[in-house]
Amino acid sequence: MLFERVAILGVGLIGGSFALALKEAQACAHVVGAGRNSANLKLALERRVIDSIAADAVAAAHGADLVLLAAPLAQFPKLFRDVAPVLGPKAVVTDAGSTKRDVVAAARAALGRKIGQFVPAHPIAGGEKSGAGAASGELFRGRRVVLTPLAENSESSVKKIQDAWSACGARISRMSPEEHDEVLGAVSHLPHVLAYALVHDIASRDTGAELFAYAAGGFRDFTRIASSHPEMWRDICLANRDRLLVELDRYGGKLQAVRRLLEAADGAGLEKVFAEARAARDRWIQSS
Amino acid sequence: MLFERVAILGVGLIGGSFALALKEAQACAHVVGAGRNSANLKLALERRVIDSIAADAVAAAHGADLVLLAAPLAQFPKLFRDVAPVLGPKAVVTDAGSTKRDVVAAARAALGRKIGQFVPAHPIAGGEKSGAGAASGELFRGRRVVLTPLAENSESSVKKIQDAWSACGARISRMSPEEHDEVLGAVSHLPHVLAYALVHDIASRDTGAELFAYAAGGFRDFTRIASSHPEMWRDICLANRDRLLVELDRYGGKLQAVRRLLEAADGAGLEKVFAEARAARDRWIQSS
Repeated sequence: MLFERVAILGVGLIGGSFALALKEAQACAHVVGAGRNSANLKLALERRVIDSIAADAVAAAHGADLVLLAAPLAQFPKLFRDVAPVLGPKAVVTDAGSTKRDVVAAARAALGRKIGQFVPAHPIAGGEKSGAGAASGELFRGRRVVLTPLAENSESSVKKIQDAWSACGARISRMSPEEHDEVLGAVSHLPHVLAYALVHDIASRDTGAELFAYAAGGFRDFTRIASSHPEMWRDICLANRDRLLVELDRYGGKLQAVRRLLEAADGAGLEKVFAEARAARDRWIQSS
Repeated sequence: MLFERVAILGVGLIGGSFALALKEAQACAHVVGAGRNSANLKLALERRVIDSIAADAVAAAHGADLVLLAAPLAQFPKLFRDVAPVLGPKAVVTDAGSTKRDVVAAARAALGRKIGQFVPAHPIAGGEKSGAGAASGELFRGRRVVLTPLAENSESSVKKIQDAWSACGARISRMSPEEHDEVLGAVSHLPHVLAYALVHDIASRDTGAELFAYAAGGFRDFTRIASSHPEMWRDICLANRDRLLVELDRYGGKLQAVRRLLEAADGAGLEKVFAEARAARDRWIQSS
């Protein structure tokens, strides 16, 4: 048993799946959940994702030896402030935020001398379904979790958090918060914005209904991430704004380059881009 | 039995699947295939996708009562010229080209007074796998096939082609070639270019390998269509160049609008775009 009392702040897809995975691994004795949506918390209790519901984040974190922040990012500053005064000396805190520089800054601002007890994490897993109803103890199995440990973290704090995510079946990597936000800005945040923009563009046309009627499997898969949680993605975009702006400009430049090939009817140039992209993607799929 | 001898010009994913579906529906007696890749034709014969291999398109079309053009679009003008002199008076021709204005123009140029025997079609089905090895008799089941009949088509020619695609399990729609190219430019051709561009952008960076290592399910689905056949997509882009340029510019404008929201840190504006996109996509998924 790694933990006696685990507090999940935000029992959605990620928080709920973390709870279920720890339970299935028999890594914790009791999970208490807190969140804004009482119907979702009730569902989490019914599904035995959590063992009890706390009135708020303060009550949940009180006496917990592991606290997970898994709410949309904009709530993190308040959650860290709620947790700070009740955090016991042996307790550790981690999170599931999709950005890391802002989360670390919020933690530093709120936790003060307890900052060493917080080990930032980002599980690279998820899906377009949200809420405790979608939680699964298998969500993190074989998936990457990026830790961005702080200089203030003790080895034992990092080990506890690493053990928790490992118990969920995840593969652990380490990066700096800056590197994390740069990497995820390119391969996650940018594609989400691109997908949202395409669906919004189609839907906002007078002919939108007809266009959707002829959209097929390619469109469905391309836009799957446009069914992701809007509030969560609002917060991610704002938190990683500088990197995402860089990525959008870079992508805009690439699109212009492809546009020039098309305008010049440069078939060889287009085929080269397409073939190189396919080869790179196929290599990635085969190796992953 | 709808057809005695069906000629498939290009026995890839689409042509092979058409052959298999007709055979499974017992809608044809004999399928003859022709194509550029003799290893692929051998595989098609081994898999009984086709019953015989013709030396070329002329030999395949000779004596056929149904001819399907299912090669990359750039080969269509020559294929129509090959077919024209050997096409019997009762034979009908259809195609599986992803664009329709250029195909109709090529057919008119080559078929002359036999143009009424050609009923243009586009099965909205496919996948990133290509070749006869990927062919399946189920590929078209429940999927849309758009016919863009010509003024010169007799009712009986259209009926024969409609019956052939219906025998494959497809749902038939009708449009003008212009409307077809506009609709597919938006919901198919544009997303393919967007996906190719993203993968190419990531792959061409020094940090590409690391970026791919942290790409997850969202990236995988978003970019699935970037594993599509480069030559086929080169031809589609060139054939629908004017519409695709319009779509690229329109999408570029939408991306700029989202970029402005991001630059202004307009969280409410971003969330509105994301929420409207998610709602539109979810409505589409539920209705399809």
